[in-house]
Amino acid sequence: MKWLTGNTAEILSALSEENKLTLEDNQQVEEQVQKIIQQVNENGDQALRAYSKKFDQVELQDLSISQETIDIGYQRVEKGVIEALEAAKENIVSYHEKQKQYDFMDTERPGVLRGQLVLPLARVGVYVPGGTAAYPSSVLMNVLPAKIAGVEEIIMITPPSVTGIPDVILAAAKIAGVDKIFQVGGAQGIAALALGTETIPKVDKIVGPGNIYVATAKKQVFGLVGIDMIAGPSEIGILADKDANPVYIAADLLSQAEHDTLARAIVVTDSVTLAEQVEKELYRQLETLPRKKIAEKAIEDHGRIIIASSVAEMFLIMNKIAPEHLEVQLNDPISYLHDIKNAGSIFLGEYASEPVGDYFSGTNHVLPTSGTAKFYSPLGVYDFVKYSQVTYYTKDALAQAKDAVALLARKEGLEAHARAVECRFARENNETMS
Amino acid sequence: MKWLTGNTAEILSALSEENKLTLEDNQQVEEQVQKIIQQVNENGDQALRAYSKKFDQVELQDLSISQETIDIGYQRVEKGVIEALEAAKENIVSYHEKQKQYDFMDTERPGVLRGQLVLPLARVGVYVPGGTAAYPSSVLMNVLPAKIAGVEEIIMITPPSVTGIPDVILAAAKIAGVDKIFQVGGAQGIAALALGTETIPKVDKIVGPGNIYVATAKKQVFGLVGIDMIAGPSEIGILADKDANPVYIAADLLSQAEHDTLARAIVVTDSVTLAEQVEKELYRQLETLPRKKIAEKAIEDHGRIIIASSVAEMFLIMNKIAPEHLEVQLNDPISYLHDIKNAGSIFLGEYASEPVGDYFSGTNHVLPTSGTAKFYSPLGVYDFVKYSQVTYYTKDALAQAKDAVALLARKEGLEAHARAVECRFARENNETMS
Repeated sequence: MKWLTGNTAEILSALSEENKLTLEDNQQVEEQVQKIIQQVNENGDQALRAYSKKFDQVELQDLSISQETIDIGYQRVEKGVIEALEAAKENIVSYHEKQKQYDFMDTERPGVLRGQLVLPLARVGVYVPGGTAAYPSSVLMNVLPAKIAGVEEIIMITPPSVTGIPDVILAAAKIAGVDKIFQVGGAQGIAALALGTETIPKVDKIVGPGNIYVATAKKQVFGLVGIDMIAGPSEIGILADKDANPVYIAADLLSQAEHDTLARAIVVTDSVTLAEQVEKELYRQLETLPRKKIAEKAIEDHGRIIIASSVAEMFLIMNKIAPEHLEVQLNDPISYLHDIKNAGSIFLGEYASEPVGDYFSGTNHVLPTSGTAKFYSPLGVYDFVKYSQVTYYTKDALAQAKDAVALLARKEGLEAHARAVECRFARENNETMS
Repeated sequence: MKWLTGNTAEILSALSEENKLTLEDNQQVEEQVQKIIQQVNENGDQALRAYSKKFDQVELQDLSISQETIDIGYQRVEKGVIEALEAAKENIVSYHEKQKQYDFMDTERPGVLRGQLVLPLARVGVYVPGGTAAYPSSVLMNVLPAKIAGVEEIIMITPPSVTGIPDVILAAAKIAGVDKIFQVGGAQGIAALALGTETIPKVDKIVGPGNIYVATAKKQVFGLVGIDMIAGPSEIGILADKDANPVYIAADLLSQAEHDTLARAIVVTDSVTLAEQVEKELYRQLETLPRKKIAEKAIEDHGRIIIASSVAEMFLIMNKIAPEHLEVQLNDPISYLHDIKNAGSIFLGEYASEPVGDYFSGTNHVLPTSGTAKFYSPLGVYDFVKYSQVTYYTKDALAQAKDAVALLARKEGLEAHARAVECRFARENNETMS
């Protein structure tokens, strides 16, 4: 694990150098994805079938997964897992319901109503990656906020496989309340959701993680439909003082590191002793992990122990990192809440172990990565609504506003804007005016 | 003006054909913008100066606009315009303050706190286009919601010009409370805000409209920083019945048409008589407009009169169009509020003329275009905050959650996740356990 020490300016400069976001140049992927989207645009389902054969080695009869298939999959999943998913669902729903927003209507100007409507998106597409690792928890995290927002129809897509869609994914989709499932993956799946085909309906927004082709396709269709943020590798940042438990810290660091060789696991502490204990404990725990190779590579490449000179400096450094997950393993952790400026999901105290948020607590686990917590939010109910403004004016109220509108419109060279308001007061247009 | 008639299915199919979003292929612009961003990344201010010379024909001494220049500009603006901008500001602030959101903390699970913090972005960049038309109203609309959100520093950039930045833009920036202004435009300006240079600080999010180079640059830096939606041509949709005033409708259609030859102006009505009156009145009013050529072209290419068979069908059609601005010129307009599914800004009744929203009422005029009101919202205070989740667990609460977390983690093949929670309850890690 790499140590960063020195004064705060030096540490920040080293971090900034490490995290310098390079402008990606995936020209080849970009072009390949562009071609796939064009093919789906021109040939619809036929293109989807051809790509399934080419990329997934599956000759598809039916793009859609039948309700019977879903029910059979659900029934094959162990009862304990179903119960755990149902318990997680209950917590996710009870948390996300508090994110619901409501219309307002403001009457403070005489003769004027101004308001904001909160309206659900009509149809949303959720991408669920295929491959060996099936993540039912992610199905719940992506679908349930949309349900709570009031989205009428939720379409899930996932890559076809010769062995079929994993049972636990079908079960999670059923529990979450997905309306339709189609087996199509990759850039062609994203294209189908964005453009619509004979079988797959066009959606208003696409959410869910995926590989570089999926992410590139999402970026390319952005504007045709809404998309969620582009997810990067998982991250954890832990703030710890000398009294923190190195066993817990090491375990939580490894829980992120096992995701991906690019995952980042960072401890910021003012105690060299604690740092040494964490490092030692981490390598001890690493030995017996099934995903040891992945976690070890992540720790070697992206694990960091940062020694700060004070708690204030610890926060300064961590706010710069803006981690996806932030654990505060300090005494009286809630007293530091106001010191946190940038973090996707904050875990306070030694029993708020980050995986409880991945699976159970009810907060969302789709979170901003790579420092984007500076400007992005966790996935939430707000991602599945849009606002509409409402304005009503009486004639008297418009009369009060008329001169200011006309003056500013003419200052901007937009005469028709001025006349639109003024024509309401011209004698010839108003037989009833005295 | 083109008429669309027939049954609703035919009208919807014709509209869908017209509005078929083509996949843009601006390969040349994309590559040019990519090169500009790379240059700014490598050479910072020096690249900005070189591009200013090349694209704006200006040899810049100072990238930054001094407070003195801003104050002099402000003083040169007519008192009436300053007063109108101040009045508009007051309305914009009073409306947008109602969009403020607040933290919550939920205690409904024993031993568990779950919450959401609403945190302002630290630094925002606002792009203000140059050219002949200066839009001070847009400065207010982009900057004030950020101020209300609590953004610490607002950076404005605008292209340099041999005649200097227009006084009214400087005045609007001063009134809105912009912190710093830099004279740099185009893709290089967006690159500077996204990456930072010696002079221009890196921001967390970029908002504001611009030409194809600006829009393409925003799309390319998306992910490095947040961006607002990509704005298309302006649009108005008007729902009108036989009792509506054709003079007002024609005037409001023209107020959008004068923006741009690509602007869309659409009336949907169940009255052929009203439709004929609107068309006649529109060409009459067009004759004396200073921007006649632009408005005429917009009306010819993108003006539509749509005849629906009932009020219900009118809403069906308009919700499909999802216009940026929607006027409801029907009797008892507020009774139709629940029939509107997709619209950026809704204007109810014959005195809520759309330009009152552009300049005065206080609702935002930065709105979703090209049918994106199906999934995007007006610019608002919510665009300048991000949320952070907060979780706290007691040991007892984690004990309750432990088995579900471990079961789901192992089901997903993530052993280290399971162990992170379980290690908190292993005897050897807990000297104090009985």
